[in-house]
Order: sequence, then structure tokens, then C-alpha cells
Amino acid sequence: MQIYRVRIKDEVLYAAKESGTFFALENSPFEPVPVLGRPLDEKKLTLLSPCQPGKVVAVGLNYKKHAAELKMTLPENPLLFLKPSTTVIGPDAEIRYPAMSSRVDYEAELGVVIGKICSGILPKDAGGYILGYTCLNDVTARDLQSIDGQWTRAKGFDTFCPIGPYIETEYDWRGKRVTARLNGEVKQDSTTDDLIFGVDELVAFISNVMTLNPGDVIATGTPSGIGPMQRGDGVEVAIEGLGTLKNTLR
Amino acid sequence: MQIYRVRIKDEVLYAAKESGTFFALENSPFEPVPVLGRPLDEKKLTLLSPCQPGKVVAVGLNYKKHAAELKMTLPENPLLFLKPSTTVIGPDAEIRYPAMSSRVDYEAELGVVIGKICSGILPKDAGGYILGYTCLNDVTARDLQSIDGQWTRAKGFDTFCPIGPYIETEYDWRGKRVTARLNGEVKQDSTTDDLIFGVDELVAFISNVMTLNPGDVIATGTPSGIGPMQRGDGVEVAIEGLGTLKNTLR
Repeated sequence: MQIYRVRIKDEVLYAAKESGTFFALENSPFEPVPVLGRPLDEKKLTLLSPCQPGKVVAVGLNYKKHAAELKMTLPENPLLFLKPSTTVIGPDAEIRYPAMSSRVDYEAELGVVIGKICSGILPKDAGGYILGYTCLNDVTARDLQSIDGQWTRAKGFDTFCPIGPYIETEYDWRGKRVTARLNGEVKQDSTTDDLIFGVDELVAFISNVMTLNPGDVIATGTPSGIGPMQRGDGVEVAIEGLGTLKNTLR
Repeated sequence: MQIYRVRIKDEVLYAAKESGTFFALENSPFEPVPVLGRPLDEKKLTLLSPCQPGKVVAVGLNYKKHAAELKMTLPENPLLFLKPSTTVIGPDAEIRYPAMSSRVDYEAELGVVIGKICSGILPKDAGGYILGYTCLNDVTARDLQSIDGQWTRAKGFDTFCPIGPYIETEYDWRGKRVTARLNGEVKQDSTTDDLIFGVDELVAFISNVMTLNPGDVIATGTPSGIGPMQRGDGVEVAIEGLGTLKNTLR
């Protein structure tokens, strides 16, 4: 199932797309059995981020080639950082170029959406805590990342975490192509087979540090090919089976 | 006014203490004029963290002597990191020693509680966005801090952010004594006059990175004297005018 969050006039609601039609979701997407309600007029919809994470837990250096391009050694454990919920925007929304930075990069990533409260689990049990998967752009003020050492400011500006367009609930994350396109030109092109730590390992590891709540998102790291964007650019994150997340830089 | 959050049986509510008596708050503490309701029986109260931050934005190396003890150079701008909301516990609650760590430190800090949505402000306007001040313990797995480089895991374990016992809304943060005591012995003893970046500068700087929401907390950094705790230890953060925040390590 493809889960969306949409606005129609002043109403914000979850929706699901079935056979090309949007339907209102009558209950929460975090309840086990979705209940489809009235069909929605696609022309009147604005797509929002498909969930509202309390936190986005991101993983650094999780593709071998990306660690190499940053000249960093591979970590023994997943290297965690946080993006605050205030970074999250939806499809087609504008990324704002911060006055503090003079280099803002795209980072295409597979996003994992948590479905149930998850604490202290084993990798073999991770699947039961995952609602689904989505595209995510871990926008980064690259210049501030090295100035600060800590990545919080560089990755924490408002609008620096586009998520969407939907959450796919039936999905095998293995072997999927992950691409970033800037103004239509392919800049990142890899597959999830190059991940150092797989999704199950990440969810379990993080859950042994901090409790994950429904709607929280894990950003699983970006492949090689990172680079800067300019004001006015259009950036797309496309992941096989998860559609395309497009945003522009203001 | 001293604002508390308390549990009585199954009910959780905000409260205020006036002339030694707790009263239920009839409205939100984020509304400008507090409305006191029924008096509460102190013997039946459990104190909770006085707010439920969506995010805790913390500042590293903000006391000169502490930067020196870590042998780190002073930052030109506030060095930001995040503690997820899942770290927050209240007074008297237990800090859990994580299996991943073998050195867990206390860090006494002045906490600033945001009262209104705050984005892109100037230091001179910061006061209007602050609800009040509280004690905060930025518990840190010191060994993991250097292993990871990023501080997220080291500072992000569940229970690693005791806050309380109350929010003082009428408070001048300048010149206040900040102490940490471990099993009754004074370990940190400084004043907020040693802060490198003051509260107004911090709120303004952070608000130019990320939108601050009502209930969000800024941890303003810790003075020198950091050190490890052992299982069973009692740790207290005491700040002049803000009471004492006591927790034990499990």
C-alpha cells in the first residue's frame, strides 16, 4: 500500500492510493488494518510529507564509496546523528538556502518509517516495527559540517529534510537503485546493496540507544556523488519502487 | 511563578506552586496568563519533567574552563547538538546505565524553556520567546563521545536528560551559581557569568538555524568538573533560584 499525507483546502489527512485513485484513510496508518474511505480528487490535493516524525535519526558514512569520497574511515558501528522534526518538508516544497552557508548539498537516502514503539530489539525482529519506506533528501550545509565538527547545524536547518512522496508498506529494501538528479542530470546512482549496515541492523542498533516512536524516520545514509546545489535548482531523489521526491531550492 | 508537571494517579497535569501549595493549572503554561485551579495534595503528587520538549538543543563547550578541560578550542559560534525527546525524564526518575558504555558522566546545565514559536530572531528580542528556566543534566556516555566523533549516541540514550524540578518564569539567568553534586559531594561549581554565549545569543542563533517550538529546551552547556557516575549513585544539579534536580543511576 502507498500511504500519503495530503492537504485539501484546510483539511490535512492521511490517504492511500489504490489502482491510481487516492482514498482518504479512515484510521491512522499506524493501525494494523487500513480502512479506506471516500475517494479524493487528485487535482485538489497538495502532497505533504507522508509522516510527521518526532525525530529523524540519520546514519553517516553508510555507503562504502561515500565514506571514501569524504576520506573517512568506515565506522565499526552505525554513526548516528539527528535531524530535528522542524527540518521536514514534503514533496514539491521549497528548500530554503540558509544565509549562514555558502554550500548546500543534496543527499539521496532511503528512509525507513517506524510503525510501532521500538526499544531494545534484535535485528531479526526489526521488520515488525517498520511501517514502510520512502525517499528522503538529507540536505546538508557542507561548509558548516566541517567548521562545526558536529553535524547538527549543517543538517538541521528548517526545510533540510524533504520526505516522500509516499510510504510504501510492502517493500523489500534490498537491491534497490537510489539516484539523485540535479536539474535532470544524474548525480548519485547506487544501490542499497552497497549499504554497510542494512535496515534491520540499523533499526535494532538505534533502538538500543533511543526508543523509536511511530512516525519516526531513519535516514539510512547516502551513496557517493554528493555535490552542491544553487538557488533555483530542482533536485530529485528517486528510489526504485518508492517514486520520486522533487524539491526546488529557494 | 514555578511551573510543574505532575502525575496524580492516572492524571497528568501542569501545576503551579504558590505560597508553598501546588495548584492545578487550568490552562496551558504556554498561554500568557496562567489560571490557577484547585489545590493539589502534595503527598499524592509525582513530579514529572516540567515540560515535554519536541527537541532539546544543546550547546557544547560554552564555559571557558570546560572547553579547557576537554582540551578543545573555543568555538566562534555556538556548537549545537541535539538530544532526542526520548532522553527526557523528570526529577527522582532513574538514569539507566547503557550496556554500550563504560563511562557515564553528569553535566549540570541551565535549561531554557521556549514559550512561543521562535524563528530567525535577534538576541535583543529573545526574552519574549522564553517561558522560563530550569535545571538540566546533560548525561553523557563519555567513552562513546570520542569513539563516534558525533555526540548523538553518547548523549542520546533514553533517560539521559533529566529536567526539573520546575520552570521558573521570573528569573534573571545572569550571575547564578551552577553546581553538580555526586552522592552529596560537590563536583561542578561555577556561575553563569562564565558562559561564553549568553542565553539571548543562544536563543537567537539557534532560531536562525531551526524553528523553536513551545516546550523546546535549550541546554546551555556545562562548566568544568565533569566526571563519571557509577550505578547506584545519586546525582544532583542545583542552580540558584531553580531548586535541585536529583536523580539516581540504575
